[in-house]
Amino acid sequence: MKKVVLAFSGGLDTSYCAIYLARELGLEVYTAIVDTGGFSAEELADIERRAYAMGSKKHTHLNETENFYNSCIRYLVFGNVLKNNVYPLSVSSERVTQALAIAKYAKTIDADYVAHGSTGAGNDQVRFDMIFQAIIPEVEIITPIRDKKLSREEEIAYLKENGVEMDFQKAQYSINKGIWGTSVGGKETLTSHLPLPEEAYPTPLSKQEPERVILHFEKGELVGVNEQTFRHPVQAIQHLQELAAPFAIGRDIHVGDTIIGIKGRVGFEAAAPMVIIKAHHTLEKHVLTKWQLYWKDQLSVWYGNWLHEGQLLDPTMRDIEAFLESTQQNVSGKVYVLLAPYRFQVEGIESAHDLMSNKFGTYGEMNRAWTSDDVKGFAKIFGNQNKMYHSINNEAAWATE
Amino acid sequence: MKKVVLAFSGGLDTSYCAIYLARELGLEVYTAIVDTGGFSAEELADIERRAYAMGSKKHTHLNETENFYNSCIRYLVFGNVLKNNVYPLSVSSERVTQALAIAKYAKTIDADYVAHGSTGAGNDQVRFDMIFQAIIPEVEIITPIRDKKLSREEEIAYLKENGVEMDFQKAQYSINKGIWGTSVGGKETLTSHLPLPEEAYPTPLSKQEPERVILHFEKGELVGVNEQTFRHPVQAIQHLQELAAPFAIGRDIHVGDTIIGIKGRVGFEAAAPMVIIKAHHTLEKHVLTKWQLYWKDQLSVWYGNWLHEGQLLDPTMRDIEAFLESTQQNVSGKVYVLLAPYRFQVEGIESAHDLMSNKFGTYGEMNRAWTSDDVKGFAKIFGNQNKMYHSINNEAAWATE
Amino acid sequence: MKKVVLAFSGGLDTSYCAIYLARELGLEVYTAIVDTGGFSAEELADIERRAYAMGSKKHTHLNETENFYNSCIRYLVFGNVLKNNVYPLSVSSERVTQALAIAKYAKTIDADYVAHGSTGAGNDQVRFDMIFQAIIPEVEIITPIRDKKLSREEEIAYLKENGVEMDFQKAQYSINKGIWGTSVGGKETLTSHLPLPEEAYPTPLSKQEPERVILHFEKGELVGVNEQTFRHPVQAIQHLQELAAPFAIGRDIHVGDTIIGIKGRVGFEAAAPMVIIKAHHTLEKHVLTKWQLYWKDQLSVWYGNWLHEGQLLDPTMRDIEAFLESTQQNVSGKVYVLLAPYRFQVEGIESAHDLMSNKFGTYGEMNRAWTSDDVKGFAKIFGNQNKMYHSINNEAAWATE
Amino acid sequence: MKKVVLAFSGGLDTSYCAIYLARELGLEVYTAIVDTGGFSAEELADIERRAYAMGSKKHTHLNETENFYNSCIRYLVFGNVLKNNVYPLSVSSERVTQALAIAKYAKTIDADYVAHGSTGAGNDQVRFDMIFQAIIPEVEIITPIRDKKLSREEEIAYLKENGVEMDFQKAQYSINKGIWGTSVGGKETLTSHLPLPEEAYPTPLSKQEPERVILHFEKGELVGVNEQTFRHPVQAIQHLQELAAPFAIGRDIHVGDTIIGIKGRVGFEAAAPMVIIKAHHTLEKHVLTKWQLYWKDQLSVWYGNWLHEGQLLDPTMRDIEAFLESTQQNVSGKVYVLLAPYRFQVEGIESAHDLMSNKFGTYGEMNRAWTSDDVKGFAKIFGNQNKMYHSINNEAAWATE
Repeated sequence: MKKVVLAFSGGLDTSYCAIYLARELGLEVYTAIVDTGGFSAEELADIERRAYAMGSKKHTHLNETENFYNSCIRYLVFGNVLKNNVYPLSVSSERVTQALAIAKYAKTIDADYVAHGSTGAGNDQVRFDMIFQAIIPEVEIITPIRDKKLSREEEIAYLKENGVEMDFQKAQYSINKGIWGTSVGGKETLTSHLPLPEEAYPTPLSKQEPERVILHFEKGELVGVNEQTFRHPVQAIQHLQELAAPFAIGRDIHVGDTIIGIKGRVGFEAAAPMVIIKAHHTLEKHVLTKWQLYWKDQLSVWYGNWLHEGQLLDPTMRDIEAFLESTQQNVSGKVYVLLAPYRFQVEGIESAHDLMSNKFGTYGEMNRAWTSDDVKGFAKIFGNQNKMYHSINNEAAWATE
Repeated sequence: MKKVVLAFSGGLDTSYCAIYLARELGLEVYTAIVDTGGFSAEELADIERRAYAMGSKKHTHLNETENFYNSCIRYLVFGNVLKNNVYPLSVSSERVTQALAIAKYAKTIDADYVAHGSTGAGNDQVRFDMIFQAIIPEVEIITPIRDKKLSREEEIAYLKENGVEMDFQKAQYSINKGIWGTSVGGKETLTSHLPLPEEAYPTPLSKQEPERVILHFEKGELVGVNEQTFRHPVQAIQHLQELAAPFAIGRDIHVGDTIIGIKGRVGFEAAAPMVIIKAHHTLEKHVLTKWQLYWKDQLSVWYGNWLHEGQLLDPTMRDIEAFLESTQQNVSGKVYVLLAPYRFQVEGIESAHDLMSNKFGTYGEMNRAWTSDDVKGFAKIFGNQNKMYHSINNEAAWATE
Repeated sequence: MKKVVLAFSGGLDTSYCAIYLARELGLEVYTAIVDTGGFSAEELADIERRAYAMGSKKHTHLNETENFYNSCIRYLVFGNVLKNNVYPLSVSSERVTQALAIAKYAKTIDADYVAHGSTGAGNDQVRFDMIFQAIIPEVEIITPIRDKKLSREEEIAYLKENGVEMDFQKAQYSINKGIWGTSVGGKETLTSHLPLPEEAYPTPLSKQEPERVILHFEKGELVGVNEQTFRHPVQAIQHLQELAAPFAIGRDIHVGDTIIGIKGRVGFEAAAPMVIIKAHHTLEKHVLTKWQLYWKDQLSVWYGNWLHEGQLLDPTMRDIEAFLESTQQNVSGKVYVLLAPYRFQVEGIESAHDLMSNKFGTYGEMNRAWTSDDVKGFAKIFGNQNKMYHSINNEAAWATE
Repeated sequence: MKKVVLAFSGGLDTSYCAIYLARELGLEVYTAIVDTGGFSAEELADIERRAYAMGSKKHTHLNETENFYNSCIRYLVFGNVLKNNVYPLSVSSERVTQALAIAKYAKTIDADYVAHGSTGAGNDQVRFDMIFQAIIPEVEIITPIRDKKLSREEEIAYLKENGVEMDFQKAQYSINKGIWGTSVGGKETLTSHLPLPEEAYPTPLSKQEPERVILHFEKGELVGVNEQTFRHPVQAIQHLQELAAPFAIGRDIHVGDTIIGIKGRVGFEAAAPMVIIKAHHTLEKHVLTKWQLYWKDQLSVWYGNWLHEGQLLDPTMRDIEAFLESTQQNVSGKVYVLLAPYRFQVEGIESAHDLMSNKFGTYGEMNRAWTSDDVKGFAKIFGNQNKMYHSINNEAAWATE
């Protein structure tokens, strides 16, 4: 009997797939849930129950949270990556990691097929397809939902026919929760002009009094929050999330280009990711040189876009990661952040690598390291080419009159 | 008698310069104040009074606000320019405009010298020097404050000796106000870790109830606010500022590289600029293609940095402006913004050029313009090179083991 | 009867298409040859004869050479575009122009279908498809060769069956000739290691004695050669080609990425294009500022790649063209070039806009415009940040030991 | 007695410096010649003789050739760096290496001063000054030639007065020889329009018969030539130089921006560097992905410019080096090159990492890995955004008419 690995979330689409792969295609179905930090223990247990109810031969829980951080989030922080200057790539980065984990699992059990429940209308299908074809090119991809274009009702009817009487309530807002943020889609995000209502966001505002928090970075990674240090940055992120999320911080709507060329709009809440990125960026402004900041910007925009488009396996991504890692050598220190309802403010930093050291003089005050004549000379030479340019071209303009 | 044009603000430093240029150097002093939207009529009258009290032969008010917009702010909006992703270049852009206006005025009156009151420790000296040497290379630059390195007390004593008994109180926070934002410096900004206190910001929070505002853009320029349209974007900006400033919006601290290589930190409040830039950027995300957005980012970061460094006269800046102008052709429409205390939220847009048109299908839903087989083919080809890369290099790796 | 416009070259593939579209699909076939400067009058007449022999209802000669220059080559010169630093995009740019002309023609005659003879294995299919779907989305695309995957022999047999007894000899090397260069493919270019033999190149070496030639540029465009000026740059290019081609100049092999992700290798000869680009670039080095040169490089690499991939209609291309056009304002003057067998050398330039004017001092010799103290001051400030960086981080390193 | 380290070349300027530092300033002079591969044993012995004749307390030969390669040339090859697409940065990179070696030596012997013989008119003074101030900020820099602005005749007279009767003939062309190329300056390079005459180039054409040569690269580095492998790439470069230089290959004139803002022109011959860079680049086109090639271009242009401007110590350079190093992982294989008088041709490559593998299908021929329907789907999606853009904006244009 041939084996298929199915990326399984317990929702209607992947439940349909499980039944379909077993009954219609006669395959041995290995369901796998890739956990990237978005599920509680109860949710995972529930997904497992559902998997077996759908006829899974074997259900596996792939805990990829730390791996997700190590191979993805880490570089998104190093690069201060916010797609279109807004979105921390919550879902984009997670989906790529999940595809990789599924591919590796399929390899391990020597699967003949791999299946995902993506529709034919979004980004995820492209991410799954591309990762699978690069990592397990010999394994055929099956995508029942995309191929059969069934309606919700048809899927439910099929499951019923096959004895599954589960409750697949359609929520008013579709939510995708992960350690790097929670996306929120609904009828408003299908328009260009409507904001999401307060109740669409899963985490309500529950703290009113502003709080101060200190973030500790070590070579660009969050290693501590206030007095606590953590075994792994994942835990620091989760702890910060607990502190910051009740302020309803990090909500916004991202508008951007999907892989397939149309524009899409999605809401999200991402308290810890937003605070970490802004805090990290402020620390960098103190410890990196002007051109390090410049080139980080140039490369990170592209890096984020390419990751979004599912191209994590392009070796260019490794090259940029090497660049980013190199820049983080001195990105160590404390960042002071004020958390308040719906907003936060990075208040300042402290670092042994701070280039704003008053050892060399303070902006706006004279100092020992250079004289005003030095600056006069600098201004003369620094403006030299433009001076010549204007002189020569004015003359040339005049000569042709 | 030889003529000197002095960039005059009415403060202690330029008052000292006026007396010094007349008495010590025996020059005929032409004072000029370049108005870029930061002065009230009373302030301008007061500055004029002071100018004549300091022995100005002739004082001139150069109204450059619209010119400032046309030659600078316009492109900062087109490029969504925020230095280090934070600062709208309030002072940087203004100073360059002022230097240009002074240079042109000096040319007009055929001045022998031009003077500015910058110290030898900041960015402004480099901006003034470079603009002057490019535009009026034949006119010698005099900088008494930079050259003589006098203390505040020495300057006041010198003025007293020369019969000037004006009151030059040192404010606790130094403020520079202009149409594109107000900078705030104080003892906290000389440290890396302290935020500015509430009272340091000149505009206190005075509105508590959130308000909605609609911004109208035409080819990238703000032409209307709510029901009102304006003769010139400068007026639209000023009107929006009146609506938004009472929310204490657009406050932040910028940390960045000065022209002379040290790091500097400055607070600012810039309600209208921040709202305009974020609203404009959101509109662009709907009407521009993916690569337009990408290249605007890459070029604008550099454009902002180079403007900050006083290099507006580099012809590269004209070339980038041509690029930016070309991108704005379809950046027309309405942007809905929510103003609230200390924060604002861009809620959505409407535009005839919106590429998120549901004419072509909606993100996440199937549509008529392409099939799921098309996307399958796309994913196959789009991932082709990485698939080959991994296959070939795994094999190569294997062969060498 | 429904109308189809067929892009017709007179070769085997498009001859097959003509018959097939008429006989099998029952369409009225409008053949069109898009002339971008690569055909002689005899060749055009021959193509017309063939068109009618294949049952064309109406054959049209679309003379697009000047249009090709105006919309494409012009910017390739402005940007000194050589893909992978080698290839002037001879075929890539031409094909896009041809697709545009066909699309416009189809619109003019209100065609129901448009057809091209591309196979399913190359770049051209993507270029044709994409231009057609953007410009004439309502017109269906027919691609018989791609769809039916016929062998050469099958195509010939089909033509015979249909009474066409034309001679379709397969040349040893496939040639595509146009004003911006001639591509050459053969069995060697299917390998990675073999060069093309001398006889593969259509233009043999026939001049041995080096010659000097003077190129006249006006705002970046070639307007004259030696003593002659021309009505349109197309004529200047053609004249230069006559002078330079007998030296067997501008031959090389391009290796690069096809649109579909595989690597491809193609030989080419492009005497005039290579001489023009190198001459133009040298002139620019004299008249543009450092950062103009820098940004032209950054943008042009991407512009060339995106054009190669058939994306000329992306509005980003218009924006970059606006940038490039702006840079050319002062790119006027003479360039001296030495032509010799298999090579050429740009020897020097003369321009009223030359920034190497000795008016301001000569490199390596002292001058009036600045002093050695100015340069000392410049070096101090220019190196300021790195000095601080190393001091602070050495100390930090030391402190942690 | 206080110690000064003098960067000593044995020429007139540094001979003057040696005498001057000892006699006028009363310093103990430690001369040091930094050898970066441009001197023969005889030349080095001669320089040492001169040093002691000029009163050097101790003369040191710092052999930095391999270090020069390891810290500089290596990355210039990885990046295929040619400034302005022409110049391998022969002198620029060497001077920076020399300044570093002098600075380290000064630190070792605990010098009080460091001296260089640069004039106040070129790039080298800035390079020396900046490296010294960053590495040995506590050591004062002395530059007699720059400060005293002496003529050649005055220097010779001073030396005579001080008993030095050496022959300082002024060569017609000033030559700077190093492992990464030889620069040539003369009266022609002071103009914009004249080429250097044949005799200006130190290495005459002495081979007429074309030769083929095979270059072996390992992770981007030249490790072998034809049958020979070498202990260190420096030896491979020197061996290739012996084979290629007699063909008078790699000659050109570079026009570019000096650090101080004026344009400069310099001839050079650099046979091995040019062959290596072009061969290496061709190999990369076969083994790197499209975006690796793209980003290498973008970063390398800036890297070369910044190195040219003496900013090697900017940590951004380390970050880019990390990027470049990462890209070279698979840049291994053979490159076939044809050497001929005044020119060379890269003919092809062989590599286990070649992405032009026919395993996946050959450009222009159909293959097993994807179907023509896949490409149709790809073209549809790949052109999606532009299709929508044109449809929406045509309609918008129409609506406003």
